[in-house]
Amino acid sequence: MEKQINDFQEGEPLALFALIKDAQVRTTKKGDNYLALTFGDQSGELSGNLWDVTDEQVQQFQPGKVIYLEGQRDSYQGRPQVNINNIRLATDDEPNQPEKYVEQAPESEDDIKTALRPFVMAITEPTWRRIVNHLLAKHGEYFFKSPAAKTNHHAFTGGLAYHTLSILRLAKSVIQQYSGINESLLYAGALLHDLGKTVELSGPVGTQYTTTGKLLGHIPLIDGEICATCEELNIDYESSEVVLLRHMVLSHHGLLEYGSPVRPEIMEAEILHHLDELDASIMMMQTALAKTKPGQFTDRIFALDNRAFFNPDDDKYEETTKNS
Amino acid sequence: MEKQINDFQEGEPLALFALIKDAQVRTTKKGDNYLALTFGDQSGELSGNLWDVTDEQVQQFQPGKVIYLEGQRDSYQGRPQVNINNIRLATDDEPNQPEKYVEQAPESEDDIKTALRPFVMAITEPTWRRIVNHLLAKHGEYFFKSPAAKTNHHAFTGGLAYHTLSILRLAKSVIQQYSGINESLLYAGALLHDLGKTVELSGPVGTQYTTTGKLLGHIPLIDGEICATCEELNIDYESSEVVLLRHMVLSHHGLLEYGSPVRPEIMEAEILHHLDELDASIMMMQTALAKTKPGQFTDRIFALDNRAFFNPDDDKYEETTKNS
Amino acid sequence: MEKQINDFQEGEPLALFALIKDAQVRTTKKGDNYLALTFGDQSGELSGNLWDVTDEQVQQFQPGKVIYLEGQRDSYQGRPQVNINNIRLATDDEPNQPEKYVEQAPESEDDIKTALRPFVMAITEPTWRRIVNHLLAKHGEYFFKSPAAKTNHHAFTGGLAYHTLSILRLAKSVIQQYSGINESLLYAGALLHDLGKTVELSGPVGTQYTTTGKLLGHIPLIDGEICATCEELNIDYESSEVVLLRHMVLSHHGLLEYGSPVRPEIMEAEILHHLDELDASIMMMQTALAKTKPGQFTDRIFALDNRAFFNPDDDKYEETTKNS
Amino acid sequence: MEKQINDFQEGEPLALFALIKDAQVRTTKKGDNYLALTFGDQSGELSGNLWDVTDEQVQQFQPGKVIYLEGQRDSYQGRPQVNINNIRLATDDEPNQPEKYVEQAPESEDDIKTALRPFVMAITEPTWRRIVNHLLAKHGEYFFKSPAAKTNHHAFTGGLAYHTLSILRLAKSVIQQYSGINESLLYAGALLHDLGKTVELSGPVGTQYTTTGKLLGHIPLIDGEICATCEELNIDYESSEVVLLRHMVLSHHGLLEYGSPVRPEIMEAEILHHLDELDASIMMMQTALAKTKPGQFTDRIFALDNRAFFNPDDDKYEETTKNS
Amino acid sequence: MEKQINDFQEGEPLALFALIKDAQVRTTKKGDNYLALTFGDQSGELSGNLWDVTDEQVQQFQPGKVIYLEGQRDSYQGRPQVNINNIRLATDDEPNQPEKYVEQAPESEDDIKTALRPFVMAITEPTWRRIVNHLLAKHGEYFFKSPAAKTNHHAFTGGLAYHTLSILRLAKSVIQQYSGINESLLYAGALLHDLGKTVELSGPVGTQYTTTGKLLGHIPLIDGEICATCEELNIDYESSEVVLLRHMVLSHHGLLEYGSPVRPEIMEAEILHHLDELDASIMMMQTALAKTKPGQFTDRIFALDNRAFFNPDDDKYEETTKNS
Amino acid sequence: MEKQINDFQEGEPLALFALIKDAQVRTTKKGDNYLALTFGDQSGELSGNLWDVTDEQVQQFQPGKVIYLEGQRDSYQGRPQVNINNIRLATDDEPNQPEKYVEQAPESEDDIKTALRPFVMAITEPTWRRIVNHLLAKHGEYFFKSPAAKTNHHAFTGGLAYHTLSILRLAKSVIQQYSGINESLLYAGALLHDLGKTVELSGPVGTQYTTTGKLLGHIPLIDGEICATCEELNIDYESSEVVLLRHMVLSHHGLLEYGSPVRPEIMEAEILHHLDELDASIMMMQTALAKTKPGQFTDRIFALDNRAFFNPDDDKYEETTKNS
Repeated sequence: MEKQINDFQEGEPLALFALIKDAQVRTTKKGDNYLALTFGDQSGELSGNLWDVTDEQVQQFQPGKVIYLEGQRDSYQGRPQVNINNIRLATDDEPNQPEKYVEQAPESEDDIKTALRPFVMAITEPTWRRIVNHLLAKHGEYFFKSPAAKTNHHAFTGGLAYHTLSILRLAKSVIQQYSGINESLLYAGALLHDLGKTVELSGPVGTQYTTTGKLLGHIPLIDGEICATCEELNIDYESSEVVLLRHMVLSHHGLLEYGSPVRPEIMEAEILHHLDELDASIMMMQTALAKTKPGQFTDRIFALDNRAFFNPDDDKYEETTKNS
Repeated sequence: MEKQINDFQEGEPLALFALIKDAQVRTTKKGDNYLALTFGDQSGELSGNLWDVTDEQVQQFQPGKVIYLEGQRDSYQGRPQVNINNIRLATDDEPNQPEKYVEQAPESEDDIKTALRPFVMAITEPTWRRIVNHLLAKHGEYFFKSPAAKTNHHAFTGGLAYHTLSILRLAKSVIQQYSGINESLLYAGALLHDLGKTVELSGPVGTQYTTTGKLLGHIPLIDGEICATCEELNIDYESSEVVLLRHMVLSHHGLLEYGSPVRPEIMEAEILHHLDELDASIMMMQTALAKTKPGQFTDRIFALDNRAFFNPDDDKYEETTKNS
Repeated sequence: MEKQINDFQEGEPLALFALIKDAQVRTTKKGDNYLALTFGDQSGELSGNLWDVTDEQVQQFQPGKVIYLEGQRDSYQGRPQVNINNIRLATDDEPNQPEKYVEQAPESEDDIKTALRPFVMAITEPTWRRIVNHLLAKHGEYFFKSPAAKTNHHAFTGGLAYHTLSILRLAKSVIQQYSGINESLLYAGALLHDLGKTVELSGPVGTQYTTTGKLLGHIPLIDGEICATCEELNIDYESSEVVLLRHMVLSHHGLLEYGSPVRPEIMEAEILHHLDELDASIMMMQTALAKTKPGQFTDRIFALDNRAFFNPDDDKYEETTKNS
Repeated sequence: MEKQINDFQEGEPLALFALIKDAQVRTTKKGDNYLALTFGDQSGELSGNLWDVTDEQVQQFQPGKVIYLEGQRDSYQGRPQVNINNIRLATDDEPNQPEKYVEQAPESEDDIKTALRPFVMAITEPTWRRIVNHLLAKHGEYFFKSPAAKTNHHAFTGGLAYHTLSILRLAKSVIQQYSGINESLLYAGALLHDLGKTVELSGPVGTQYTTTGKLLGHIPLIDGEICATCEELNIDYESSEVVLLRHMVLSHHGLLEYGSPVRPEIMEAEILHHLDELDASIMMMQTALAKTKPGQFTDRIFALDNRAFFNPDDDKYEETTKNS
Repeated sequence: MEKQINDFQEGEPLALFALIKDAQVRTTKKGDNYLALTFGDQSGELSGNLWDVTDEQVQQFQPGKVIYLEGQRDSYQGRPQVNINNIRLATDDEPNQPEKYVEQAPESEDDIKTALRPFVMAITEPTWRRIVNHLLAKHGEYFFKSPAAKTNHHAFTGGLAYHTLSILRLAKSVIQQYSGINESLLYAGALLHDLGKTVELSGPVGTQYTTTGKLLGHIPLIDGEICATCEELNIDYESSEVVLLRHMVLSHHGLLEYGSPVRPEIMEAEILHHLDELDASIMMMQTALAKTKPGQFTDRIFALDNRAFFNPDDDKYEETTKNS
Repeated sequence: MEKQINDFQEGEPLALFALIKDAQVRTTKKGDNYLALTFGDQSGELSGNLWDVTDEQVQQFQPGKVIYLEGQRDSYQGRPQVNINNIRLATDDEPNQPEKYVEQAPESEDDIKTALRPFVMAITEPTWRRIVNHLLAKHGEYFFKSPAAKTNHHAFTGGLAYHTLSILRLAKSVIQQYSGINESLLYAGALLHDLGKTVELSGPVGTQYTTTGKLLGHIPLIDGEICATCEELNIDYESSEVVLLRHMVLSHHGLLEYGSPVRPEIMEAEILHHLDELDASIMMMQTALAKTKPGQFTDRIFALDNRAFFNPDDDKYEETTKNS
């Protein structure tokens, strides 16, 4: 495989294809225009400025476009950037599909689909199963492409489905260890809990919150879809089975402050909430620690209450030298 | 009109029909059973104990039954009660309809209906009007009977419709005073905002939260009904018009901590939230002050952050005597 | 009327008189001095840098001065600015009165005065009326010029009086709709509630908090003025009438956290608090929405808990395109 | 000295004069009236019920009356009480002055007066000294009788003056240890900070919050008095000296949540706040620990965030026996 | 097996041996002493009053004693109680060992010991293994008897070890599912995290907080033991390995507000915190739901933010009847 | 004494020796490297940029090095800086000891040592005295050099010992004023309370948190040392005396949110907490006010809840001019 954006060392010349993830026209203090660009591929992101841009360049180099880039990896105020020597749009006979330059889930879409199937089949309660099948079918394509978040956790193509699968795997362990848990309800709730993100987020390339997502949020979005689905399938959306399922998705953020209009009040809902938090926090820590040398702390992770996590070196670390 | 439960003075004998609002079997420390009863009519409530009850009496005197009661108004630990001399079920040729003994909204059901109509007709946006008309028709009977709360504000027959009307009247004043407010959206949002309470609460007689109400809450309940209604009426429930209307009802509690999964982010939603709070707090203060002598404070009102409100006497009050 | 600062398009040359609202001497990284200027007129504000300034220019171009400016409207990092070609002080025979370049309330000072009068006359309780008349007379000029805040809501000449009038108009509607509200008390409280801002703020041109304002705040300032006024007018400042009026102004922020030393504990105080919040939030939303295109969100409004508000287009909006 | 209420052991017969601190008419479940009485003297309080009371007795035995009591010290549900055998009003030739039966400050009124004088004289700034002298003179009698609180700390006759003196003594130590503290300002602020409690509280016998106290609070009360005093003495109440003094009293609770409309923003105000808290907490701990055996925890102290404090026995304690 | 305390129906006569868990001397309003007793065995608890007690009975019937009891199961104010007909101390030839009447963990002590062993052996880092082995050996007996809490979760004999084992089982699943987790560290932290409870709590019979427990808390208790153990075993207690282990136990409550002096800042610590919460909440919900009929809510569970949990009936429930 | 860094006026040429406290390689937008340097001596700090640096210079000018500097004091964006004309490392025969250029406590190390001794000798309880002596001896050198914080309060050489001494002096005053305080316990707790900072912080030159400090915090650090010391000295670390001492250091931050795993529950601990806060806040205010002209506010002080403090001019101040 070719070298990607984050495979280069500081000072090393680079030449590669990449996706424009962000492009802002700015003006120097002296009045000259330039483009502040962010490039990305499956290895991550890199920023760089294109000085003295022409109007034509501003039109060309827009987010979502694939470009060919030559330059040198450098750093500005401690952050890596690229000094651009040459930049042009990728041509049609070059690898110019934007989706190839977006980060991917650790497992392939097919593997995730295969792994999810037995969980859907384990839902023995017929109403829940009909609703889950209907909604997965409806969102099919987006569900397996969508990220699970704009930034934070699982912010990559397929992140939503992968996060859902991880929770289901944890749920299976919990069901095996403890008695009295309704397997159908926990699986159905886990499968649907974040499905509203397919509407809340604009998709894996240049992920933004949609206006609808900002005005409603993914929790009411999926709850509303369940109700409309029931109407379509001739199921009473205020029957006891549906109320239990709606409670699962409505309460999964755990606290009202986090956007759940009700707190978990059935055991399966409380468990779903815990597993959702556990999986999201492990994924965020793994991602941050992968970029952090042993003996160092990660950058602060906003979604984990702004904590920085330490990466021990072989279970040990060298302490800072003391002075007095 | 005949004298009602709260028209009697302490020490005065009474004989009247009333509704049993609550009935609890209890045992004295020495082991004798008795019934702790709460009676009610349109003037309010009064408690009393029926000592040495028989099993037959326990069966008869259940909540929702109308009884004929003779006794004497008294007080126990500062709270009024009735010493029961005689009690029996009302017969068929006596006034034994439970709904006659429940507190009523300050305006009649017909007046409220008449007053609401022009607000519905002022909704000129066709999608919102169809949804509002459909849902008011669906809930019709309950909407005009339901209380607006279990205790707190507007906890009487018709309270929900009366509270809705009060908000609409305030909204009209606000629209006249300020420019740029979408009248249709504000009225539609106000009409629907608490409609989920028809499902969340069990009704005006012996109001309880239903199980469905506890597990979903009235905000997701009405949001889900809007979505199902759209499905039924062939309206896209994620179209921009519907999203704006859903945002109105979802955000009307103002803060996530109060059960709104999103905060108000359009001007009409922010206004609806303020008017909802204003009307509810005025109604609670009026109710509490009506029971409080000039120069005294009301009991603490839980839903107003446990504040007690002062009732000034002709804009003045007598101060407590000082000592030193 | 001549074109004002915000009537020009990006890239358009401009020549106009304006007020210097802020002027900061700064140094480039290479050590050259320049002036970072903010210009303003009734249409709003615009920033621009004057490079390579002389000491004489630093002396001349101070906040509060009116200048004549030639240049071109441009933008730096997404924010509009002016590239200054020529700048000089306005001469005596040019329109050089600073107050002409400050934003104005939506109604004229005379209209506001006329509109306020009947509210003062509606105060029938003699003590409150004397105090209100005395304090309005004392602050007269400032009251009708003062903004209601440094930034946030009603931050323009006459904003304080206009905000007061808006609350009084809302109060009148509320009094008509609900029984048991003391009209004199509510009007007197509304008229005085923010009057301390005439001392807390330095005035409409280049509004700053005064040192006294920072050390005491406008709530104790007006409460102290009421007490001193009583002493002057031979009224007992701890009589029941005065205590009720003081309670109105002391409690109007609603919560201790917001600077009220007591929470509202009479009905009129609770209503005043609600109407104060309602008017301030509507004014802030109107101001922000006026600068925002349909289909867009406003900037975040700090005083509304940092929320951004959406401006729907004809009750609808175009959703962001999805990708996957 | 004669034996007082808390000098008797459980089971011991008692005969003594005491003050009625509280008297509530109650009814047994079977309908008989009785009086729930609280007696007090300088040793503390004791409760007891007077069964089968007559209307005449209810009239006689009111709070503030001195009675002669015969009975036996006992306990009910773990709390001490007295079984009343005989009770009658004290006659004119018996010790029937209520103020003799109220708890006293640890130092005599004369000693406190003497100790306070040098602090007043150390205020060299003339405006502050005039205001302090005027206000101490105005409140003189009450200041030296008033408790510092209804319950919590220094809730005894003279508690307010004693608490003030303790803070001044601490202030003197702090001034000696640290440089740059304005002695006049700190002393003047300390002397006035709680003076509003003479109005907020009804006095040492049966201390209650006055209506004025509830509606304004002691912080605005003293701030208002300072302003009115200035008006009377022809001092500008918004002059810099007065603003600093007002800031001292307004900010002394430290946090807005605790009723200060401004937080301390001058060094002397911050110090006053700390010393106020330090003295109050020591006094509360001393009082609670005095009633607690070594090796035991005190009751929870509400005003210290509901903490219970441990009383070690000679710096050691016996641990609870373990079992397994 | 013989019928236990909670195997009897309301109204059924009972005769059995039980443990006195609590005994309080109280007095009726009329002055008679009685004993308020709480009895317990492995099926739970039951309360009852012994009227007109003699001093000798008060001496005999103390907490921790086994008694023989005859009476009838009844209820007072909705809570079950026993009407005592006959009560005496168990004799030496009767089953009078207190520990037989205390609730037990769901698995036997031997099974728990056997199940824990492989987790200890999976700790390959030698320092952590030495510390864990030393501390488990030191506390051995208590560790396998101690409850995990006074009330809340795992409040039974062996609860501490059982809770520890449950977390380890969850940890094993998590390690299998996610990469990059240090198994030795997570197991060592889980094994030690609550070991301080053996000192904080008095033991399984009549569990109380010890004075030492109140003054230090179980987190500093185990941290201090780790340090002392290191000193004893000649390990540097500020070496990197020990610091990591101490961080695990210090941070496991997750938030400072919950008593952890540091928040989790290594991945294994964050995971331990989540698994601790997950296991505790499942155990509390299981316990509460086991006492709750289908279609009902449990009592409010204080340690789960006072939530009540719903017990659905076969995934469905009957809704409350509506009225209007 | 020679002129130091902060003895120069803006615009004045300077030539002096100073310590490099921070050095960051940065790149201009156009790609040139420069060094952003912070210089320091006992008078404070000053920043400056070294343009167009060579790699050799980057190697030379590292934090902790003493340099000789020629340039001119200037300002950039309102903050003082130095325009560097010439810079080189100090030679061996020049004053190149880094510790000479670090801020010092207001009293000399010897004076502090002398002043502390009587407090140690006043600890009459033998166990506490042994522990205190052992730990002071162990940390001796660091204790008298270490700052008390990275930034905030007492962030200078010897700050930790000086802060400890100030608390002890306050404690002595408190003990003299109030009865019932255990002098030995209060002194022992004060002496040890912050000793963990010798491990938590890297030392006085370029103070950083150590990794151990971040993972454990200074409160568990000193608590762990006490336990290990006990083990070494054959004292039971869970004996009542040691538990009381550990409680003192564990609880001294007052609130769990501030990192104390237990809140103060003995009187001496509560007092220590108050005195710690009082001394720290006075020191921070003194430092900030010393840099602030009369009539001005200090910069916001983060550790004092971001408040700015006012510096009155001779107890008075000039108010901002008003306009209208």
